Amino acid sequence: MKTEITSAFIKRYRSVVRDVMLPFQWRVLNDEADITIARERKNDAGIPTEKSHALENFRIAAGRTEGEFYGMVFQDSDVYKWLEAAAYCLMQGDDPALKKKTEYVVDLIADAQEDDGYLDTFFTIKEPKHKYKRLVESHELYCAGHFMEAAVAYYEATGNQKVIETAKKLADHIYDCFGPEEGKIHGYDGHEEVEIGLLRMYHLIGEEKYLKLAEYFLLERGRHPGFFLDQVKKDDMTPVFPGMEYAPATYFQDHVPFVEAEAAAGHAVRQMYLCTAMADLAATTGNEEVKAACERLWKDITNRQMYITGGVGATVNGESFTFDYDLPNDTMYCETCAAVAMVFFSRQMLRMEDSADYADVMERSFYNCALAGMALDGEHFFYVNPLEVDPEKSDKDPGKSHVKPVRPSWLGCACCPPNLARLIASIDEYVYMVKGRDVYVNLYMASSMSDGVIRVIQETDYPYSGSIKLRVVNDGADARVALRIPGWCEKYTISAPYELKNGYAFVKCPNGETRITLDLEMKPERNYANAKVSEDAGLTAVSYGPLVYCLEGVDNGKYLHDLLLPSEEEIKTHREDDLPGGVVTLTADGIREDSPDGALYSRKKKTRTLQELKWVPYFSWGNRGENEMRVWVRES
Amino acid sequence: MKTEITSAFIKRYRSVVRDVMLPFQWRVLNDEADITIARERKNDAGIPTEKSHALENFRIAAGRTEGEFYGMVFQDSDVYKWLEAAAYCLMQGDDPALKKKTEYVVDLIADAQEDDGYLDTFFTIKEPKHKYKRLVESHELYCAGHFMEAAVAYYEATGNQKVIETAKKLADHIYDCFGPEEGKIHGYDGHEEVEIGLLRMYHLIGEEKYLKLAEYFLLERGRHPGFFLDQVKKDDMTPVFPGMEYAPATYFQDHVPFVEAEAAAGHAVRQMYLCTAMADLAATTGNEEVKAACERLWKDITNRQMYITGGVGATVNGESFTFDYDLPNDTMYCETCAAVAMVFFSRQMLRMEDSADYADVMERSFYNCALAGMALDGEHFFYVNPLEVDPEKSDKDPGKSHVKPVRPSWLGCACCPPNLARLIASIDEYVYMVKGRDVYVNLYMASSMSDGVIRVIQETDYPYSGSIKLRVVNDGADARVALRIPGWCEKYTISAPYELKNGYAFVKCPNGETRITLDLEMKPERNYANAKVSEDAGLTAVSYGPLVYCLEGVDNGKYLHDLLLPSEEEIKTHREDDLPGGVVTLTADGIREDSPDGALYSRKKKTRTLQELKWVPYFSWGNRGENEMRVWVRES
Repeated sequence: MKTEITSAFIKRYRSVVRDVMLPFQWRVLNDEADITIARERKNDAGIPTEKSHALENFRIAAGRTEGEFYGMVFQDSDVYKWLEAAAYCLMQGDDPALKKKTEYVVDLIADAQEDDGYLDTFFTIKEPKHKYKRLVESHELYCAGHFMEAAVAYYEATGNQKVIETAKKLADHIYDCFGPEEGKIHGYDGHEEVEIGLLRMYHLIGEEKYLKLAEYFLLERGRHPGFFLDQVKKDDMTPVFPGMEYAPATYFQDHVPFVEAEAAAGHAVRQMYLCTAMADLAATTGNEEVKAACERLWKDITNRQMYITGGVGATVNGESFTFDYDLPNDTMYCETCAAVAMVFFSRQMLRMEDSADYADVMERSFYNCALAGMALDGEHFFYVNPLEVDPEKSDKDPGKSHVKPVRPSWLGCACCPPNLARLIASIDEYVYMVKGRDVYVNLYMASSMSDGVIRVIQETDYPYSGSIKLRVVNDGADARVALRIPGWCEKYTISAPYELKNGYAFVKCPNGETRITLDLEMKPERNYANAKVSEDAGLTAVSYGPLVYCLEGVDNGKYLHDLLLPSEEEIKTHREDDLPGGVVTLTADGIREDSPDGALYSRKKKTRTLQELKWVPYFSWGNRGENEMRVWVRES
Repeated sequence: MKTEITSAFIKRYRSVVRDVMLPFQWRVLNDEADITIARERKNDAGIPTEKSHALENFRIAAGRTEGEFYGMVFQDSDVYKWLEAAAYCLMQGDDPALKKKTEYVVDLIADAQEDDGYLDTFFTIKEPKHKYKRLVESHELYCAGHFMEAAVAYYEATGNQKVIETAKKLADHIYDCFGPEEGKIHGYDGHEEVEIGLLRMYHLIGEEKYLKLAEYFLLERGRHPGFFLDQVKKDDMTPVFPGMEYAPATYFQDHVPFVEAEAAAGHAVRQMYLCTAMADLAATTGNEEVKAACERLWKDITNRQMYITGGVGATVNGESFTFDYDLPNDTMYCETCAAVAMVFFSRQMLRMEDSADYADVMERSFYNCALAGMALDGEHFFYVNPLEVDPEKSDKDPGKSHVKPVRPSWLGCACCPPNLARLIASIDEYVYMVKGRDVYVNLYMASSMSDGVIRVIQETDYPYSGSIKLRVVNDGADARVALRIPGWCEKYTISAPYELKNGYAFVKCPNGETRITLDLEMKPERNYANAKVSEDAGLTAVSYGPLVYCLEGVDNGKYLHDLLLPSEEEIKTHREDDLPGGVVTLTADGIREDSPDGALYSRKKKTRTLQELKWVPYFSWGNRGENEMRVWVRES
């Protein structure tokens, strides 16, 4: 299947990724960008912030230069994610300058690989005696997984043999070191990811042992209590993250085998990568027990632990999931990487079951939490995506220092920017899905797809309009197009007869051309959180189509908590040109409360004056300087 | 002036202190109580929790037994605060068993004192080479201050000479070690307190050098930047609190001289002890610059940084003040000790200026935040006094693990219980104030006072009734009684002519007997926070007289955030016998919101059903098992 994106909205993002973000990241990875690297939170002195040094680490490991390793233990993964994003860009069209950089990187990685296939610059340069001996914190397999993902993407984009040979050599080496057989290590990485990479390698090459190894890592997890601690106790390396071996087992999803898990737990990105790999495994092998666990965790997350923006991870402590209905808006983590991984997980679930629920969450996480991770300029990034910010609190409350009111240019732990880049660059892979003779339209986005027999041309101004025109050209036998009816849409019309199933409208498309018009009623909507969510009591979040909206100080003044949206007031839409490609903003006649006097506590009720409220899409917040922001707004 | 409390409400507390709390604390201090010592927060492994060991430390230092020091570096202060509370109890009446214990303690302390007057069991036993060399963390002068306070109280209660000689020897030793003179240490303790003790010694004995030393510590503070760090750098002792020397100078109120401070900052208890001592200094010496600074900080705290319960310290990070209008209800510290110190500070301010504002805050902090620090049984204590608790969040959110839903029996850092004990045991000293021929009634509380010439007999059921009957018997020349008109009271009647000034109604009392009836209209009231307080937007706190009220789960069910008090609904009062001595509870017809379905996010508005709401006094919360609690309630 080949997909081409024509959406102006998405094309702008993709050109930002190609023309701004990747060159910018390239300069960062080469320590050539004039940037200040931000700490995730105050007093977190453990995070290296002088430079990236990521490519220099490879040059040192490759023996091309001399020097010391610098950066996070998983610094290599920044390079791999950059390469993966670059690969998707190359799929979209020639770019000789980019191609040259990627070839340099591929050669460099191959040179940095050791003869036996081992690949990790931290351990090659700094701690060669401790390979695979501290998996709780080493991130060796995590980095390997990212390289495998990049290698698969780069091979698919360019046919480059070297990258896939390097990845195979690495995967073979890992296979030789890990597994149930005697003499191998009976354990797994502290941070899931290699499982995703191994499965992608398997899908590309068909090599059974990669599937077997992924399955080993996935199904063994949670069955070796004490493995991480035992390793560290036997090893005398200076810790990378002192004490990490004492983190609760939930942090690593090591507290219970996945098939027995009832709820998402621990570090959110790890949990989501695990879910993604598990869903892939279940879709690939048909393992019903794993599938059931995936569905269980899906429900737990989306019904009880997910923000309305599609973000996950309710606490900065361990960047973790917490518990049912615990969704604080101003102290959470909601890491960009976790939202990106929600999109990955959704897609794998869709492979197993054509339920529009999965595509709804994919859309929610992509258009809201994930896209918010990048500034409109493509050079500034959020790690944490709050639903409520007050710059003074971020500045002065140590408990909120991780919640930034504007995007820093680069982060000491730089996992998010390249993760988002690879998602945006490969978003075409998420729009359509072909199962037999059914073409599913999971995301609405001006685009065209072809699987060689059937072509779909989609015209729409989505996400700002719900009007979608499809032209289906079928060169084969009877087929169907399955149009997702988004969960946010209550009224819609389809110009052709259709059959509704699992949230999809199936329209028959016989041989020849079929034209279908889908009109999704798109209007400003008020959303209410479950009554068990204490943080959202009395509040409403406004949305328009798939987009969640927010108030910002620049439009609404200070003290956004004093603004109220009257219960029955109409919310109006406006097309504005503030953002490149235009944007739909929302307004309503609202109320501002104020104190009758300067007293801290008063018997007098607050005064109320009229004030127009203005919302902008959540993904676009924080692009006009430091100011307050609020998704959940008081309703009167 | 001699005051006797007859109030049933207060007498019950005082008998709990005498009959339960002091014996219980005695057993704890002797490691004889069968208790679990709680950690302030999760993963705070630095806090010793096996036992108290406080008296054993003294026995070891005194050479009576052998062993190692155990406990916090300031463990001695637990003994001193116990002794001080015991002294106040002895003032109220004979108690041979208690007297015997106190005499044992006084002898033991004297034995533990070194020949040169030095007194601190941690350093005597464990680190004798490092005395006064790590004032950032040593708490040596802090402990000394508590001993001086105890010594003054015990001397006043019993006339015991030994205790005051021991205290003088200690104060003289400190005077010889600290001061502006060459060869002395030019610095001060990381934790203010010795200044209060020295001033009390000065008030008792009239020794000028104690005043001079207190003044030195107070006025020098903030003028020796780097003092704490320099000391630690020159010293090789194993740190007590590793890294404390790098805490921001605000933490110790060392960022600026007090007379230049614009706002309260840093560790709240330290700040309040500093304010208390400063106000005492200004009242004692007439220093106008210090007085102005006290007034400035008073206004800053009470107008912008104080909870409606009279608690202070908005963040657990550094147990600190934060910034204007930052008053989160569920993550704050609001330490019992800090509320107790608000009462101290208020009293010192009253000495300088007869403004009812000071007495209002004294009353607010005492009846709400401070009293809440102790369970009704006298054997369980809060350190942190939240305005909102959900036991599940305290249990599962590491950012809220310091917020306990029920009082533990003892805390590893046990400063609060004895601090509250000494306040309750000495509350008679706060009720009346004599200035010239004016007798101020600062607190309403059934009681009688006499200064030898004038007697006041106060009859009232306050805080549950606003009806107060005063009989004034004046054996001297014309006098006045100044009746405080509480800030919470909007309507009142006085049976005699009066002149109003600074919130006091002055009633003339010529020679002979004068009977005055004061009727303060006491009814349930709604309070609103300033519009700048984001955490209280849309919420109301209900009060009745001086008491702040709260909802508890045991009365109102789960999810207190879903309960609303209609805007105009009447709140009814009920006299109940649930608490010893009775209690006034409040009810109103309210509303419970619920979700129309189980969805996490829904377009449907929440359903509303009627539910009676029931409030109990804040001081009494958490006495009926673990449940939710909420002071600020949604208003519709």
